[in-house]
Amino acid sequence: MRTVEWNYETNQFQMIDQRLLPGEFRVNAYDDYRAVARDITEMVVRGAPAIGATAGFGLALAARQSSASDTGALRADLESAAEVLLAARPTAVNLSWALTRVLRVAAEIEGSADNVRAAILEEAQRIADEDVAINKRMAEHGAALIDDGDTVIHHCNTGALAAVDWGTALGVIRTAYEQDKKIHVLVDETRPRLQGARLTAWELEQYGVPYDIISDNAAGYFLRTGQVNGCFVGSDRTAANGDVANKIGTYMLALAAHDNEVPFYAVVPTSTVDLALAHGGLIPIEERGPACRVGPC
Amino acid sequence: MRTVEWNYETNQFQMIDQRLLPGEFRVNAYDDYRAVARDITEMVVRGAPAIGATAGFGLALAARQSSASDTGALRADLESAAEVLLAARPTAVNLSWALTRVLRVAAEIEGSADNVRAAILEEAQRIADEDVAINKRMAEHGAALIDDGDTVIHHCNTGALAAVDWGTALGVIRTAYEQDKKIHVLVDETRPRLQGARLTAWELEQYGVPYDIISDNAAGYFLRTGQVNGCFVGSDRTAANGDVANKIGTYMLALAAHDNEVPFYAVVPTSTVDLALAHGGLIPIEERGPACRVGPC
Repeated sequence: MRTVEWNYETNQFQMIDQRLLPGEFRVNAYDDYRAVARDITEMVVRGAPAIGATAGFGLALAARQSSASDTGALRADLESAAEVLLAARPTAVNLSWALTRVLRVAAEIEGSADNVRAAILEEAQRIADEDVAINKRMAEHGAALIDDGDTVIHHCNTGALAAVDWGTALGVIRTAYEQDKKIHVLVDETRPRLQGARLTAWELEQYGVPYDIISDNAAGYFLRTGQVNGCFVGSDRTAANGDVANKIGTYMLALAAHDNEVPFYAVVPTSTVDLALAHGGLIPIEERGPACRVGPC
Repeated sequence: MRTVEWNYETNQFQMIDQRLLPGEFRVNAYDDYRAVARDITEMVVRGAPAIGATAGFGLALAARQSSASDTGALRADLESAAEVLLAARPTAVNLSWALTRVLRVAAEIEGSADNVRAAILEEAQRIADEDVAINKRMAEHGAALIDDGDTVIHHCNTGALAAVDWGTALGVIRTAYEQDKKIHVLVDETRPRLQGARLTAWELEQYGVPYDIISDNAAGYFLRTGQVNGCFVGSDRTAANGDVANKIGTYMLALAAHDNEVPFYAVVPTSTVDLALAHGGLIPIEERGPACRVGPC
């Protein structure tokens, strides 16, 4: 199954609960866009592309929930639902990107309210399908950067779980492996929430790709001792000049790669590019609560 | 009490069990130098200066344990005890430094086996007392580098727990605080064993110094955003040219400080300087077992 998807049999939205992995694999089903918004905040789903697709389907749910019989009233309901969804994780640019895209369809479509409902679900599905296709194309391009025998460092989780399917940076690694290249992945555990140790390691285990989990601090040692051929990360948001904002620790990893002349790649779909921001210093940084002082949470 | 010390009432060596902090404060007493060696390996005690003092007292225990009545037999027993203690943590230069110093006294002292026993305990006690005095002098010098209102980053634990008392890098911070400077400490949690979150935070709590625990990854963010005035670390071993080998993560922190032109200080007693090594590339790096993949251990 996909990480986030519409279930056409039950007419529900569903997604893998990523808080529970790797201990438990559970799929949550949604009838209410407000529950979707809450679970974006709670990090049931995370990863820029996955959040974008989730927001699109969230609007499709809101359209299904709305009792409006004329398109004007339905559009008003969708606008207020979009505000709730946007507030779920305000710094995620894919969220506003997907909401804008679906709302534009809702504004432009002709016909009845039910026409609008159908068009919205189609657009949300299109966003999801495009995400998979884009990731696979990025993976083909990126895999050319990985040679047979390479060891690569990966930070956070950018795999199928971070997208609708396949993933961005981890998708590149996965494709290189499927091209029969013998590779080894050093998985940054990615403190404080351990997305690497919990999610990326779990994915690599499924795919059969050899890996070791390392403490984020150890990346510098492996780079310094010449054991690494490349670093691959995703992007939460990318400024117009190419500056990347990404999970905490990305900057320190990039400095260590630079100091040892090891290539460092951010694998970025256009949906995470924010042309309104001239450079990375303008990208808002999300600070979550202080609860997770020690250990996974 | 001191982190490691000789108890003259019971004639035992004793040290704080640092594996249990901050949950439990327990002092272990020792009658057998082999148990001391085992507990150096098990990290009941850690920190370069503390390990050195422990090794000295370990030899004093070995002398007490030896049934030798002539100095030749006693010296032979001490040589074999020193081998056991040295193997407890082979990369710790303070260990061999303290053992060499105590064995030299054993070799040079005149008189009976009991004269040698007494001289060894005196020398071990001198190493411990000197460590405290040296740390306090380093702290006086170092505190001049911290201004009123400064925020500093500290990596690992270099406080009283890492030494006999007072500490090296954390000793500097403590002295600056006792000089009534308003300071704030960002405590790197220090993965994988969390010496910062467990030990440094516990010490700062005792001293009343304001602090926040941060994930090691977050240090780059605080440095990048201009919130840090200096970084302070200790040293496991220092090469003749001044290169420092220290807890994993020190290198990545140093790169981030350098990239933002924030001063970075290693607080180093001469006992951790290894003049036999021309540069840091020759310092052996300790790799512990892979058991601690995720979470504190």
